[in-house]
Amino acid sequence: MIIVLKPGVTEQEINHIVEKIEKLGLKPWVSKGVQKSIIGVIGEEDVLRVQPLEAFPGVEKVLSILKPFKLVSREFKPDDTIIDVKGVKIGGKQIIVMAGPCAVEKKDLLLEIAREVKKSGAKILRGGAFKPRTSPYSFQGLGEEGLRYLREVAEQTGLLVVTEVMDTRDVSLVEKYTDIFQIGARNMQNFNLLKEVGQSKKPVLLKRGMSSTVKELLMSAEYIASNGNLNIILCERGIRTFTEYTRNTFDIIAVPLVKELSHLPIIVDPSHATGKWGLVRPACKAAVAIGADGLLIEVHPSPEDALSDGVQSIVPERFDALMRELKAVAKAVGREI
Amino acid sequence: MIIVLKPGVTEQEINHIVEKIEKLGLKPWVSKGVQKSIIGVIGEEDVLRVQPLEAFPGVEKVLSILKPFKLVSREFKPDDTIIDVKGVKIGGKQIIVMAGPCAVEKKDLLLEIAREVKKSGAKILRGGAFKPRTSPYSFQGLGEEGLRYLREVAEQTGLLVVTEVMDTRDVSLVEKYTDIFQIGARNMQNFNLLKEVGQSKKPVLLKRGMSSTVKELLMSAEYIASNGNLNIILCERGIRTFTEYTRNTFDIIAVPLVKELSHLPIIVDPSHATGKWGLVRPACKAAVAIGADGLLIEVHPSPEDALSDGVQSIVPERFDALMRELKAVAKAVGREI
Amino acid sequence: MIIVLKPGVTEQEINHIVEKIEKLGLKPWVSKGVQKSIIGVIGEEDVLRVQPLEAFPGVEKVLSILKPFKLVSREFKPDDTIIDVKGVKIGGKQIIVMAGPCAVEKKDLLLEIAREVKKSGAKILRGGAFKPRTSPYSFQGLGEEGLRYLREVAEQTGLLVVTEVMDTRDVSLVEKYTDIFQIGARNMQNFNLLKEVGQSKKPVLLKRGMSSTVKELLMSAEYIASNGNLNIILCERGIRTFTEYTRNTFDIIAVPLVKELSHLPIIVDPSHATGKWGLVRPACKAAVAIGADGLLIEVHPSPEDALSDGVQSIVPERFDALMRELKAVAKAVGREI
Amino acid sequence: MIIVLKPGVTEQEINHIVEKIEKLGLKPWVSKGVQKSIIGVIGEEDVLRVQPLEAFPGVEKVLSILKPFKLVSREFKPDDTIIDVKGVKIGGKQIIVMAGPCAVEKKDLLLEIAREVKKSGAKILRGGAFKPRTSPYSFQGLGEEGLRYLREVAEQTGLLVVTEVMDTRDVSLVEKYTDIFQIGARNMQNFNLLKEVGQSKKPVLLKRGMSSTVKELLMSAEYIASNGNLNIILCERGIRTFTEYTRNTFDIIAVPLVKELSHLPIIVDPSHATGKWGLVRPACKAAVAIGADGLLIEVHPSPEDALSDGVQSIVPERFDALMRELKAVAKAVGREI
Repeated sequence: MIIVLKPGVTEQEINHIVEKIEKLGLKPWVSKGVQKSIIGVIGEEDVLRVQPLEAFPGVEKVLSILKPFKLVSREFKPDDTIIDVKGVKIGGKQIIVMAGPCAVEKKDLLLEIAREVKKSGAKILRGGAFKPRTSPYSFQGLGEEGLRYLREVAEQTGLLVVTEVMDTRDVSLVEKYTDIFQIGARNMQNFNLLKEVGQSKKPVLLKRGMSSTVKELLMSAEYIASNGNLNIILCERGIRTFTEYTRNTFDIIAVPLVKELSHLPIIVDPSHATGKWGLVRPACKAAVAIGADGLLIEVHPSPEDALSDGVQSIVPERFDALMRELKAVAKAVGREI
Repeated sequence: MIIVLKPGVTEQEINHIVEKIEKLGLKPWVSKGVQKSIIGVIGEEDVLRVQPLEAFPGVEKVLSILKPFKLVSREFKPDDTIIDVKGVKIGGKQIIVMAGPCAVEKKDLLLEIAREVKKSGAKILRGGAFKPRTSPYSFQGLGEEGLRYLREVAEQTGLLVVTEVMDTRDVSLVEKYTDIFQIGARNMQNFNLLKEVGQSKKPVLLKRGMSSTVKELLMSAEYIASNGNLNIILCERGIRTFTEYTRNTFDIIAVPLVKELSHLPIIVDPSHATGKWGLVRPACKAAVAIGADGLLIEVHPSPEDALSDGVQSIVPERFDALMRELKAVAKAVGREI
Repeated sequence: MIIVLKPGVTEQEINHIVEKIEKLGLKPWVSKGVQKSIIGVIGEEDVLRVQPLEAFPGVEKVLSILKPFKLVSREFKPDDTIIDVKGVKIGGKQIIVMAGPCAVEKKDLLLEIAREVKKSGAKILRGGAFKPRTSPYSFQGLGEEGLRYLREVAEQTGLLVVTEVMDTRDVSLVEKYTDIFQIGARNMQNFNLLKEVGQSKKPVLLKRGMSSTVKELLMSAEYIASNGNLNIILCERGIRTFTEYTRNTFDIIAVPLVKELSHLPIIVDPSHATGKWGLVRPACKAAVAIGADGLLIEVHPSPEDALSDGVQSIVPERFDALMRELKAVAKAVGREI
Repeated sequence: MIIVLKPGVTEQEINHIVEKIEKLGLKPWVSKGVQKSIIGVIGEEDVLRVQPLEAFPGVEKVLSILKPFKLVSREFKPDDTIIDVKGVKIGGKQIIVMAGPCAVEKKDLLLEIAREVKKSGAKILRGGAFKPRTSPYSFQGLGEEGLRYLREVAEQTGLLVVTEVMDTRDVSLVEKYTDIFQIGARNMQNFNLLKEVGQSKKPVLLKRGMSSTVKELLMSAEYIASNGNLNIILCERGIRTFTEYTRNTFDIIAVPLVKELSHLPIIVDPSHATGKWGLVRPACKAAVAIGADGLLIEVHPSPEDALSDGVQSIVPERFDALMRELKAVAKAVGREI
């Protein structure tokens, strides 16, 4: 940690800071320059981080040198983490596709979609039983009934299940039915929820908040990891910017950035990242080319009747054609799908 | 709702949309233009909103005409809502100041701060017992012990209490101790939490999410209102943008904008909006001048020792001087403090 | 154009608006609903656009139906535009790579880089003679001397030249030396400069401004087109958002979006979009997969000595390896490089 | 400057960096920590800034300690700069109001507006003769004719003139007619234009670019200052963010931030910052309360007929009422208007 001092800082102010740091058991060194003086502290930066150093008199700014996340960092574990969900491996050579409707509506419909996506190569069924909706007047999901449908359809088709949990009170309920917990973008910093799924053994799909930095995404993963669960799959799903035409801005560079900073696998949700079904196809090709470990795609046979997010869903035929195209791109970058 | 059709839309596609709308019990009218054709639907737009109209073939885009919030809208209730919390009125002529430490640390310290801010004119004591922290390794708050301190200090000083609730499981616990529930920025779209506090009778201070629009803030208020609780105080606390130097961008225009769109009172949190104690003073003056109904200010006698957010806290002497300056500004705009 | 009226709008206000529209030679129709009334105007929306309709009493908001750009729109010209620069075709099956140093420094060095990138498959040499630098104390480019080096090296190597013009006064000078004018991100809305290059016959590479929407990019292209020059190549180079770690946010979805809205070719500048050489390689692969018509890459043999943007430049060996990888990705999506 | 090294950096890499720095005549010191090592360089940071240090092997990141601007910094000149334009002092106790139409249209109309705003207390007449318009089909301004009208009306009314210059070729023309050059938001980084007005003696009103940081605004001011002209008035006019309802986000905190970092005066343009006339009034009150040195307000007697930006203009009666309200706010914060 580097503490940059204000011009005109006094000896007394410098001593005051130095004493504080020494009291914490750390070794500061002071370096006085012509234009600026600084105090450097090399060591357990975390101890210092809890101190509001910028509040000290004479301090201009504090520059951090160490990354604030640990267990999820590439430095902590240099090798890629591969998460094994009942034999389906996420983070390895194979790119895993998770597909299904935005919200679970009827069992028949879910079964139909599941069969289609399975046939085209998907390994995991997605679908929301609890839906975070901006309006209190929108469809909020079927709740436990939806979870039951997901489980039953998964058993019938041989797919695995990923579904969202939104409330700390629902974690054990959802755990009974799902193979992977999904933490939605709006809950990325619902820290109590992160702690709860961190105490489970089941893998967690953690979606990036719509205005979260990659560092914050990794800090939220650190919450899960520090509670004992290292089976974390990160997910880029678009960020909020000034752009128009698309619902979000697909921050594709988050994929190689996460790979550089962390050992965890990262997948992409092109449906939410773009918000328009016509852009899902190109977004998927780019995601595979850049190194995503998986895709989370909304598929619905009649998007115009979907109770949620129909605009960004693709029909099964398009999904099937897309999967074939993606195989070629995957091969070109040394992966398979 | 206006449905803009693509160039080259077919008669069949138009009929398909028209039939769908009529099936929902609404009356569409088609207007064909030289360059563009549109379908208008005037009436219960909410019925339509659940339909993904942009997923229909032939549709280019859908333009909304009605606002998506109702109970909290100015159109629903033209007069300003004044919230009476045990005699303290928020939303009226008087500007209410809520002050205190970011996090509750020790009881003695809390009492000292409470006495100071009360003396300077604050009416409500703020302080976090449950703290949403980006890092799992940071101080997470004292929990119920902190709530108890807040209540005791409030009784001793004659202040009211506002404190954050982060978890649906803690709502009834927090309700026992607080006068006003605070929903933090990170939980603005924690819809289950909104429903829970919506079922309470106690007022709710709802902070704007750091990347939420004013419309989304009002939609979240609508969640609380539609669950039966109309005692909602909105709070602008800065948004995330590309700016540097400050932690957030203080979106001051949200104050008159909310006043135009809604009947609810709105206060400002200059400590989080700016993230630097040196900017709290000018931000407060601007907030009062523009018409904010209250201020939420972090005060700590030794910010350098605060366990949370010391950088943005001001010392009691500065708070006292600030309150005197604010009185003059309030008077200049026909308010009092 | 749809004019949404305020609740409580008077007959007089409606008549006032209707008269104004009729005076402009257009036909308005009024539709009164239970909750909202609207006035629709189908026809020459451009005539209306110059009128500040939202300033009329009784108007709540104005919704635009037609796109504001014409000559560059896909509706105006359904087929892709292919730009032929002395035989090099941009916008066709082949993906064109433009490579070279950020700034032109010395002739020998430029020649060395040019030979390398040519050998690896680049068709066009990039390099700045006029450099827009944030600081007045940074290297501002060699000016005409740099242009001369570019021309000479191009002749010697058989490459074409693309270089930036920053000042209306320099357009004819730059035209003498370059094959393609580059308009930088900071000048995307330097409208006089757009008019000047619009009066030239030489192709223009128009970079997206760092906070410009795709619509604004196309409006700037419309400036060039409406002055007579339709040889426009668009370029996505990253936008400014709240993200950290990278210099900009690479908005890759702009590529398929531009293809949908416009007939013009679009290329990607991964060096500026990411700002880090380590991210150039993955960004290029994604760009090719998603359908970019070309790439603009900074190459420098010793980035640590470059006078400008060394951090985002890659060395010739990496460039060569990258080109081989890109060939595979291009083939997978039916293109070649 | 602090150079943070990667974990696993080699001795050879460290020596390579140290040698480079010494060759530049500076003194580096290496500090090896348990988790991280760093190299510090105290001294002429500018020399280093031109070197792409992050491109060196072994370097993780480079942290800057000194501010990149000088002549305009508060450290360079601790006292506030007061700019005297023919006796009107900007930056002193008095808050200066500049008012007038967005674009100059007809001489009669301009004279009418000028008389009104003068009567209400404005000191400077604003109006555009050259207009930067997003669409090539919009009104582009009257050019020299507009400049002439401005001058004539100024002479008749005793107001001063501020008007925009957009093109390096027009600087001497505009200089003949105006008292203050305005550099618009879109040209804040048109560096050649900044150099040109920097060689003039006339004051320059420099508007912040819509996605520029305060640091970049000051760097652009540094361009003007380093060319010899220190008569610079900064202007906050709203930034681009994700917010809706308003055209821009009024970043009011830029005012006290600029005052902290620089000695230059700063004014606010509430018309562009909000884009809606109904928000101009509250924005002005906040601007005065927070310490702005002036206001730039669009006034038009019939906004619905204005050829540019009518939506954000206020009528003379409202302007007059506003000026009276502002006097009270100014007085409350120890200023006058």
